[in-house]
Amino acid sequence: MNGLTHIDESGAARMVDVSAKDVSVRTATATGRVALSAEAVAALRSGNVPKGDALGVARVAGIMGAKRTPDLVPLCHPIALHGVEVELSVVDSGVEITARVRTADRTGVEMEALTSVTVAALALVDMVKAVDPAAVIGDVRVEEKTGGKTGVWTRD
Amino acid sequence: MNGLTHIDESGAARMVDVSAKDVSVRTATATGRVALSAEAVAALRSGNVPKGDALGVARVAGIMGAKRTPDLVPLCHPIALHGVEVELSVVDSGVEITARVRTADRTGVEMEALTSVTVAALALVDMVKAVDPAAVIGDVRVEEKTGGKTGVWTRD
Amino acid sequence: MNGLTHIDESGAARMVDVSAKDVSVRTATATGRVALSAEAVAALRSGNVPKGDALGVARVAGIMGAKRTPDLVPLCHPIALHGVEVELSVVDSGVEITARVRTADRTGVEMEALTSVTVAALALVDMVKAVDPAAVIGDVRVEEKTGGKTGVWTRD
Amino acid sequence: MNGLTHIDESGAARMVDVSAKDVSVRTATATGRVALSAEAVAALRSGNVPKGDALGVARVAGIMGAKRTPDLVPLCHPIALHGVEVELSVVDSGVEITARVRTADRTGVEMEALTSVTVAALALVDMVKAVDPAAVIGDVRVEEKTGGKTGVWTRD
Amino acid sequence: MNGLTHIDESGAARMVDVSAKDVSVRTATATGRVALSAEAVAALRSGNVPKGDALGVARVAGIMGAKRTPDLVPLCHPIALHGVEVELSVVDSGVEITARVRTADRTGVEMEALTSVTVAALALVDMVKAVDPAAVIGDVRVEEKTGGKTGVWTRD
Amino acid sequence: MNGLTHIDESGAARMVDVSAKDVSVRTATATGRVALSAEAVAALRSGNVPKGDALGVARVAGIMGAKRTPDLVPLCHPIALHGVEVELSVVDSGVEITARVRTADRTGVEMEALTSVTVAALALVDMVKAVDPAAVIGDVRVEEKTGGKTGVWTRD
Repeated sequence: MNGLTHIDESGAARMVDVSAKDVSVRTATATGRVALSAEAVAALRSGNVPKGDALGVARVAGIMGAKRTPDLVPLCHPIALHGVEVELSVVDSGVEITARVRTADRTGVEMEALTSVTVAALALVDMVKAVDPAAVIGDVRVEEKTGGKTGVWTRD
Repeated sequence: MNGLTHIDESGAARMVDVSAKDVSVRTATATGRVALSAEAVAALRSGNVPKGDALGVARVAGIMGAKRTPDLVPLCHPIALHGVEVELSVVDSGVEITARVRTADRTGVEMEALTSVTVAALALVDMVKAVDPAAVIGDVRVEEKTGGKTGVWTRD
Repeated sequence: MNGLTHIDESGAARMVDVSAKDVSVRTATATGRVALSAEAVAALRSGNVPKGDALGVARVAGIMGAKRTPDLVPLCHPIALHGVEVELSVVDSGVEITARVRTADRTGVEMEALTSVTVAALALVDMVKAVDPAAVIGDVRVEEKTGGKTGVWTRD
Repeated sequence: MNGLTHIDESGAARMVDVSAKDVSVRTATATGRVALSAEAVAALRSGNVPKGDALGVARVAGIMGAKRTPDLVPLCHPIALHGVEVELSVVDSGVEITARVRTADRTGVEMEALTSVTVAALALVDMVKAVDPAAVIGDVRVEEKTGGKTGVWTRD
Repeated sequence: MNGLTHIDESGAARMVDVSAKDVSVRTATATGRVALSAEAVAALRSGNVPKGDALGVARVAGIMGAKRTPDLVPLCHPIALHGVEVELSVVDSGVEITARVRTADRTGVEMEALTSVTVAALALVDMVKAVDPAAVIGDVRVEEKTGGKTGVWTRD
Repeated sequence: MNGLTHIDESGAARMVDVSAKDVSVRTATATGRVALSAEAVAALRSGNVPKGDALGVARVAGIMGAKRTPDLVPLCHPIALHGVEVELSVVDSGVEITARVRTADRTGVEMEALTSVTVAALALVDMVKAVDPAAVIGDVRVEEKTGGKTGVWTRD
């Protein structure tokens, strides 16, 4: 047993059967950041650029991205999502992104939270790429996960 | 002029008109990495897990992800893709991912390359998350881009 | 408090958390119309055009459109749909469309009913546009909505 | 010949062959409106609601909606889009929406412009529905279309 | 009454209302085969071609295809999927495919199992088409179905 | 060299680079059949069931399915489609399906034609499954393919 639950004993990928898992409220929070040049940060902060719209596009992309998770991640179960919040804040080194996802279903929603952060980050990179073609997406990770048999998991 | 080409002078998002741009061969290479625990790396390397299949799922996800770019990144143009290659290699600290995308169209394909890397990374995180819930996606960035008016751009 | 539940107090869009809402049977009926030239109405009614197929394409588009609602409407929750019916009838001034959607879930289905009507209308416009490029989609609205905490809502 | 080009002589739907059509620059402008209660208009205009974000979500939905046209409208050709702009303005009676779409391809983009307007309208209705469940989408229509064999078409 | 439940008495297609059906565990198994030339079979079996990857792509396609069923089959209900397994085995005459799908919902999953087999088959044909342009997909059928009011159904 | 062009020398899947291929008119015709019980054939033929609508749903599914090919078949290039026709005819043993697809692009459209036939077949099976749960999809294959470097290929 190698611990990779998505791979069966013969090495074949599968969508693991979760029928036996309980429906319970499950949440996940993921974060990430986009490192940007000073010029790109200034553009995002400038009065000329309504911050609402520039960050707003990335926020909408992140929310919609959460819904596309089962289309993108091959072995993810299609599940209901009960709530998605995406927060973006401009800091001196770029933009920090947090996504919080909530459901009441049979599987955790950490992949949805990670996908939400990543798609928001991609949308942001797309918006600033004319100013900063060297943007870097990093530190994309689950911070906390609750619900299900394992209960609360927090990154230390 | 703030340099954010996807935002017009009133601050509204738009898909910029590229009709005037030339159709030319354009390529982009992006890279990224997934930092994993020693246990997860061992599982990926273990004889029990056909490496082909575990990494193969991520590779397919990355190739398909490149095709979903305009669905995910709100202001990206839908374009033809002529070739996509995704390479994953297991190293001691996790998995390194490279995506190379090629087209002959009016816009660059750096967003497609970045999306390919991130979706491959998400698929990989999904596959190892039972072993390593603390995986981190990082250093996702364009390495090189060719074609179009700006010609070759290389990260230094 | 401005009443726009999809916008939080800081003005950011979100998919509101519905975990606390009851799963209950919910239905919605929406209607709309496509105003057409006499020539287009005649073509739809003509013996040469199997009405079943012309309207049938729009009907299928409306049913499939209901399923795409969470892909199209950014802050809509992805939910199960238990039944969708789309009715189109040719009248002298064009085509009248009604969609009835039903689920047992935590959110209402009025957006699914409206999306169904609109996509059916778009498909119809596409089919007659060579005959009538001036078609107008109008009066798209919820007629009735049942289920959930608010119970029955009927347009007066 | 009934003039419905998407229906062949036996009455069957088809995606008509456009191989013989010229690749040319083609544009289309469509408009529409969402009729809203005074209270909903006030909420959209209120200082509490960053107008950028509320209308911004609808704008992004409209731009992304244009790209989904061939997924929604059964007989539409999948084509490249070179530019999409969506404008929303709050007036006393609701919100007015304009979409401008541009391509260089073998088919016109009026369906893309109409889809863009309708999806933006649906997103807006979704955002105000807690305040105004009686919103009505109307007057969705092509205003102008250029390019291709028929040249300029303008609604009089 | 003609027995075609997706067609109402007037002949119009509909997504039938399943609200009254019980949520129960439901499974379906479907099989199919791709008939291939000896040369294509040899290529799949050859040491040069890591069988894992060639069949692995088809397996992932089959799993993802199961999730796309409601997007493809117009009158299918969008439902949760709890588990999907796709098995491919190379035989002398080609490749045999089996898909097992499981859910706990209001409708059966035989369409998901059939879609999974078919999409895996299409992916396989695509991979061998340079070697064997004459591949034939055949014998795609439900083998067994359990759950719901009708209980167990087995092909004799 | 094993001839599987979608697999590189190390055994990894890829979307092969077609930049060097000519843009030329390319067509493909694929056929298939759904074997049905006499009862299901009678239902499709019966006066009660407007044949237009029952077969019409499958036809629309087939046309829309052709457009979804790159979403379903992992290594397929996203390409423009210039025309799609799907024909279904009821025979004593079931339904025969033919799809003709046309483009002017860098890759052939045989996968689009095969996908179109299979999705039409799946839609048909879905519509008759209450009457005939034992329907079998078979003989799905390319009949002819034209254009590109290889010119005309015909099944003998």
